[in-house]
Amino acid sequence: MNMIHTSYAYTHEMSVRDYECDMQGIVNNSVYQNYLEHVRHEYLKRVGIDFADYTRRGLNLVVVRAELDYKSPLQSGDRFVVGLNLWRESQLKFAFYQDIYRMPDMKPVVKAKIIGTALNERGRPQIPAGFAAVLMHNVRKKDEKYQE
Amino acid sequence: MNMIHTSYAYTHEMSVRDYECDMQGIVNNSVYQNYLEHVRHEYLKRVGIDFADYTRRGLNLVVVRAELDYKSPLQSGDRFVVGLNLWRESQLKFAFYQDIYRMPDMKPVVKAKIIGTALNERGRPQIPAGFAAVLMHNVRKKDEKYQE
Amino acid sequence: MNMIHTSYAYTHEMSVRDYECDMQGIVNNSVYQNYLEHVRHEYLKRVGIDFADYTRRGLNLVVVRAELDYKSPLQSGDRFVVGLNLWRESQLKFAFYQDIYRMPDMKPVVKAKIIGTALNERGRPQIPAGFAAVLMHNVRKKDEKYQE
Amino acid sequence: MNMIHTSYAYTHEMSVRDYECDMQGIVNNSVYQNYLEHVRHEYLKRVGIDFADYTRRGLNLVVVRAELDYKSPLQSGDRFVVGLNLWRESQLKFAFYQDIYRMPDMKPVVKAKIIGTALNERGRPQIPAGFAAVLMHNVRKKDEKYQE
Repeated sequence: MNMIHTSYAYTHEMSVRDYECDMQGIVNNSVYQNYLEHVRHEYLKRVGIDFADYTRRGLNLVVVRAELDYKSPLQSGDRFVVGLNLWRESQLKFAFYQDIYRMPDMKPVVKAKIIGTALNERGRPQIPAGFAAVLMHNVRKKDEKYQE
Repeated sequence: MNMIHTSYAYTHEMSVRDYECDMQGIVNNSVYQNYLEHVRHEYLKRVGIDFADYTRRGLNLVVVRAELDYKSPLQSGDRFVVGLNLWRESQLKFAFYQDIYRMPDMKPVVKAKIIGTALNERGRPQIPAGFAAVLMHNVRKKDEKYQE
Repeated sequence: MNMIHTSYAYTHEMSVRDYECDMQGIVNNSVYQNYLEHVRHEYLKRVGIDFADYTRRGLNLVVVRAELDYKSPLQSGDRFVVGLNLWRESQLKFAFYQDIYRMPDMKPVVKAKIIGTALNERGRPQIPAGFAAVLMHNVRKKDEKYQE
Repeated sequence: MNMIHTSYAYTHEMSVRDYECDMQGIVNNSVYQNYLEHVRHEYLKRVGIDFADYTRRGLNLVVVRAELDYKSPLQSGDRFVVGLNLWRESQLKFAFYQDIYRMPDMKPVVKAKIIGTALNERGRPQIPAGFAAVLMHNVRKKDEKYQE
């Protein structure tokens, strides 16, 4: 687990629920996006950004691109950990790097890059100040990490 | 929490995930059945019955009737506990009584009765020996509880 | 099909999608509530009530009780029809009777009674005028049907 | 619609169901993968490959990578069309190009590339003969199209 905790800004453990498995007896492809969204929202809450609260205020955090590499499937009974890093991708876009590992053997399950933006009340991309501060902090952390 | 732990054979805590909420901003009705199924399977695993393993062996635990009273909705960020009791309903049927409470104020969310049976490989109702033993144990516990 | 069309105020045909099936190879229990909700909303739209529009205006149509009898499961590739009747259950509650039949053999799949109410902006039960008119119309239809 | 029908090997029309919308009032990101999977399976059935039947025979068609560009969201009441093309990506991989357009204005919603493979009973990548024939046919069609 040490590698996981030092490689990611945030990690979150979860378990497969049987209703998430499809007729192949494995977690359905679309469900991993549910897992990833849940962990993004948990991370954002941790750094002071409440997705539901943003939504109620008319600030919509939206995904503009998702890339998912499916390495090996999760099955009923599996426990897993999701590691997350957040970087600023461009002026108006941010990127979540999210990797899922089966526990306890840490076999890679999914490696994903989820690019998002924030839309203001007029539907225009605009990163809110609070979110920009979080991204700024992450950029700094990134630099520090590179210096180590 | 004391009331919860003495009233139910099994309790399980969970949290709402944002993707489970619909356009009304509350957990969608169908999702509570997901929660209830997950807790039933967790309970069964605890008493030695693995749903996925049963399925692979051709023994299908199926729901034949569900009654759900929706008392108050869960929202984004809510944590909740599900209490479960299992009784034998008839020779070939068993009943899960499952109640969901919002934490920490223990406001009732859903009260449910889920009646199930087990189908053997020929699709005929037949309670497997292992499952019957669990039900027998629960009936005894019920009697003990009534004597207290 | 004739029986279906004369017994219900509204019928709606759908098909099973593979992602709706679970590890038992059959449609997961919770998915039938998705089907039933979709057909209720389609019916309401047909009689002039748009669920999403109501929601945006702060009028929340909510389910207070669901009873579902699972008669036989749907599988991958199955086509089915959902029949719906709507009655006024009490001053503040209405009831959808919704039955699912596999096509083309019309084998019963699910028989359900879904009781709902409408909550106004202060969260109090209150049947909006437009909805009350629909219910009134259905009561009349019921009487006519009984006279035939 | 003409453009759609000449640009894709297969097109499939669907409608948003209200339970697929999240608290932002739009279709949740993960649901588009459900739509895309459903259309892939419908297409495969059309060309003689039944996903459920393959699964029962131990041949698992699996997704190894998904790329989704979210162009604009679908909302309650929206009807849409999914266009699909299938190409052989490499010896052991095939790629579905799937694009979603809102109807009737044909506004782009999602552009996706879904790469898959087939796993035999020992979990090894192996394109079954029937599937290879379909891919072969598509390559030929591609060439013809380029000559037009």
